[in-house]
Amino acid sequence: MDWRERSSARKKKQQDQIPKDWIINLPPDSCLNVIDYPLKCGLLTTREIEITETVDLDVTLRNLATAEWSSLEVTTAFYKRAIIAHQLTNCLTEIFVDRALDRAREVDEYLAVNKKVIGPLHGLPVSLKDQFAMKGLETIMGYVAWIGDYSQEDSVLVQTLYDLGAVPFVRTNVPQTLMWGETYNHVFGRTSNPYNVFLTAGGSTGGEGALVALKGSPIGIGTDIGGSVRIPSTFCGIYTLRPSYERLPYFGALNALEGQESISSVLGPMTNSIEAVKIFTKAIIDAKPWQNDPLVIRKKWSQGEYELEDHGGIGAHLCFAVMWDNGVVQALPPLQRAMRIMKAALEAAGHQVIDWEPHRHLEIYKNAETIFVADGGEDYKTECAKSGEPLITTMRPDGGDHELPLIKPYAQTLVGKAFSRSAFQLWQLHKEKRALRKSYLDHWQRTVERTDTGRPVDAIVSPATAYPAPPHGLNTDSFYTTIVNAMDYATCCIPVTTVDQELDVPITRENFYNHEDEAIHLMYKPSLFVDAPVGLQVIGRPQEEEAVIAMTEIVDRAVKKYKAAVERL
Amino acid sequence: MDWRERSSARKKKQQDQIPKDWIINLPPDSCLNVIDYPLKCGLLTTREIEITETVDLDVTLRNLATAEWSSLEVTTAFYKRAIIAHQLTNCLTEIFVDRALDRAREVDEYLAVNKKVIGPLHGLPVSLKDQFAMKGLETIMGYVAWIGDYSQEDSVLVQTLYDLGAVPFVRTNVPQTLMWGETYNHVFGRTSNPYNVFLTAGGSTGGEGALVALKGSPIGIGTDIGGSVRIPSTFCGIYTLRPSYERLPYFGALNALEGQESISSVLGPMTNSIEAVKIFTKAIIDAKPWQNDPLVIRKKWSQGEYELEDHGGIGAHLCFAVMWDNGVVQALPPLQRAMRIMKAALEAAGHQVIDWEPHRHLEIYKNAETIFVADGGEDYKTECAKSGEPLITTMRPDGGDHELPLIKPYAQTLVGKAFSRSAFQLWQLHKEKRALRKSYLDHWQRTVERTDTGRPVDAIVSPATAYPAPPHGLNTDSFYTTIVNAMDYATCCIPVTTVDQELDVPITRENFYNHEDEAIHLMYKPSLFVDAPVGLQVIGRPQEEEAVIAMTEIVDRAVKKYKAAVERL
Repeated sequence: MDWRERSSARKKKQQDQIPKDWIINLPPDSCLNVIDYPLKCGLLTTREIEITETVDLDVTLRNLATAEWSSLEVTTAFYKRAIIAHQLTNCLTEIFVDRALDRAREVDEYLAVNKKVIGPLHGLPVSLKDQFAMKGLETIMGYVAWIGDYSQEDSVLVQTLYDLGAVPFVRTNVPQTLMWGETYNHVFGRTSNPYNVFLTAGGSTGGEGALVALKGSPIGIGTDIGGSVRIPSTFCGIYTLRPSYERLPYFGALNALEGQESISSVLGPMTNSIEAVKIFTKAIIDAKPWQNDPLVIRKKWSQGEYELEDHGGIGAHLCFAVMWDNGVVQALPPLQRAMRIMKAALEAAGHQVIDWEPHRHLEIYKNAETIFVADGGEDYKTECAKSGEPLITTMRPDGGDHELPLIKPYAQTLVGKAFSRSAFQLWQLHKEKRALRKSYLDHWQRTVERTDTGRPVDAIVSPATAYPAPPHGLNTDSFYTTIVNAMDYATCCIPVTTVDQELDVPITRENFYNHEDEAIHLMYKPSLFVDAPVGLQVIGRPQEEEAVIAMTEIVDRAVKKYKAAVERL
Repeated sequence: MDWRERSSARKKKQQDQIPKDWIINLPPDSCLNVIDYPLKCGLLTTREIEITETVDLDVTLRNLATAEWSSLEVTTAFYKRAIIAHQLTNCLTEIFVDRALDRAREVDEYLAVNKKVIGPLHGLPVSLKDQFAMKGLETIMGYVAWIGDYSQEDSVLVQTLYDLGAVPFVRTNVPQTLMWGETYNHVFGRTSNPYNVFLTAGGSTGGEGALVALKGSPIGIGTDIGGSVRIPSTFCGIYTLRPSYERLPYFGALNALEGQESISSVLGPMTNSIEAVKIFTKAIIDAKPWQNDPLVIRKKWSQGEYELEDHGGIGAHLCFAVMWDNGVVQALPPLQRAMRIMKAALEAAGHQVIDWEPHRHLEIYKNAETIFVADGGEDYKTECAKSGEPLITTMRPDGGDHELPLIKPYAQTLVGKAFSRSAFQLWQLHKEKRALRKSYLDHWQRTVERTDTGRPVDAIVSPATAYPAPPHGLNTDSFYTTIVNAMDYATCCIPVTTVDQELDVPITRENFYNHEDEAIHLMYKPSLFVDAPVGLQVIGRPQEEEAVIAMTEIVDRAVKKYKAAVERL
């Protein structure tokens, strides 16, 4: 069968998996911002709205644990809202309502019979990026050739979620190859941003970005090798954690570039609060994932590190450094304003804020991007060839909806034409990578001379991308995120503000770092980014997820308090 | 200059670095066992003998911390004994007496002035494998081309040792390429086993094996990618730890196959007691090496894991499994007896001992050995070509001293002719490696059905090689060690016994796993292994160095107690 026919048959099957009475009337095309549409579309009951609007995950879990809410009704509520989200943004891949509701009933029955919860995520629906294999379901991961490949086993994450009492209930969209900061493939199509469907939801975990932002899932699990949980999270106004390599169990998830271990992909939660990030991360680590995933580091959840024992302790005065500009692509005005808010908020909360000095970023990006194409693209080509579908070479929609400057990604200029490198050549890239990691570590340690804490900078505040969610097809910049993967820094993202048509006026620039920097500058018009969320990264050291989460909680509280104070004026 | 001239000039320079009055009269050629010769040769004073014979490192460190012993006299004593060891076994490379004694004086002065120690290893001489760069010294690492390359910086380990108050005092011999289980190169020659100079000291950390066994150093630091601290330790009757990847700081050490990250080399201490292994490991981790080495995992020394919280707690009844035979090469009679001693000793101490069932070892070895030659040998060839020295292809001495069966290593048969693989091909090997690690993990977890502890097997007891130290040139088997590197298991080695001419009689076998298994069986005559030590591995899980050290302390006490009881009968 032709790949087009296979794709459309599978897409139709997906459509058929949606319960008929969950099909909604769509908003008019002129309505770009659909973020509140789940509340307006009439499908959700008052109680379902109460359940899905509950952002405090502690409350949700307590209500589930006390049977105040059954898992069946919570799962039903989120499933309905996920299906609404899907109709608005095309965020889902695998839909399996009956199976999820059966699991929810099983969980409810366990509680009724045993008078105790299965585990700390008892009854909680969890959505998953279309990589996390579930026994008996396909994992298509954006490849036509993978249609019909039913998994024989659950991935370790899914097993762990079951052990913790959770209800995996839906899977979400990705780009072909996973190596894009947007979300489009030949099987399931394109995912849009719920704050402005003219804009991308980001990628590669774009399905989760849109779904979680629409509160169609209390926790979504994505993966990140160059920004893939952070880009959709900041584009969609939600929270996330990009943990260090091998802290959370990835084994059994399907992947692109599988076997590439130079800069490993990691998994992280995407949520509507930083507290939910903590709850998920702690629950997974407390489950001792090293007993099921041979690559996971045996490092228990450290309450001491969460209490910032390496950063002066609870309540300590911290020093943050803001990366206003990475020296490769200057962040646009909305990002600059978000950083100014952050700086003011942190200073108001009594912390020190200094400037971060970028260090050899261009060398780091070049090294990382070269590693990602060290196979000369053989991995992608192999998977595309199996079905005959073409390799996607741009995320721009056909028909040229957007009259915008075409940008050849600077990363391609840096790396040059990809070719198949030898193992020996790859080892030389590793030597270079290690030297760069050492250099950046020493650079960070030397900041002790500029702080008033007696310690090096505790965390870096940085954009995740140079812009808020751009129109589909224009997300080319991963320089602010990739450095984190290359250096393996534990990093959270938080939403800070949204694009303000009055405040975020374009600036004048005459000198540019490179053609991409210039193209991004030229692209910027506030009217193109109406309602787009603006988020930032909080970057810590490798394997200090506990401390980074704790510092992000501090940052989040400071920003909320500061914004409330400003609004009161 | 011809590589031979460069080599012999450098060797002569080494000879000249030995203080003239430290040159001893050598024992007669008929004296194969030189282990006690340092005591007999007349160079050491009574006090120097007392100092160097002190195996209890706590005592040494306490005497140094209280200035009961000065670092100058301790360093002098060990240096003299190291020079004796060198004259007996050819174990050293870099000799820098003045520099080390200057450092010792500095340390003594610090204590005198400040009335406190610099750190937990205050004043302690530490020897280093010829990879650990020290500013201003060459690191030749067995390559003629590297003669004259003076390091610009200390490796992170050396920096850390200085921070802890230690005195790096000598560097030790390695084989060309490091990828041998023996120790011979064109610059510094061959290192022999002090228990029987007819036998190899093992490798690649053979210099440390001979030096530490002769008590020429209280702690020697080696590295291990396929057995390189464990082989010389068991061959030379000492203790060691092969930690998991990236637990201890390797950055800045020179290496072979640099940039190869599929199965990483690690560093570990080689000592005369398991307590010294603990002291070193804890001191290094407590120094927070992740602040200087970007690859070191941020995992603090865990007192809880040392107290076996994951193995039933202090004093718990443990279950060990003995790997009598790995199904590839059967261990020879002295190893079988060592395992019987271990089993009896552990049972006498109240622990359970069951049989370990090997699981897919041949696939694991093939995968690992293929990874090691994924560059088609380009790394070695490049370094040899720089000087013109030939690549060493056998460790057998010229002139055929030993009339023994020639063994083509089975690993070569498994892997086939090495060729340069592509990065994509290497990634496929990684996929296979990960699947094998998962399979072995699940296999280990399933042992919970065979133990009486409610837990899977706590640790595996295994040979490190199929034989005790063989005659030079005959150490071809790394199957018992390589699996640990491939699976990344934290592993200690301890000495158990020595070859007994009466007890360790050859057995009759008719069926063999492969030609190497047969050749090793045919090689075995007790008379060939006179006085050879016999040690074993205690194998734990990844990143549980604390628990493996604690379990090895239990094993060591049990074996000592059992042997004392048997002797009393």
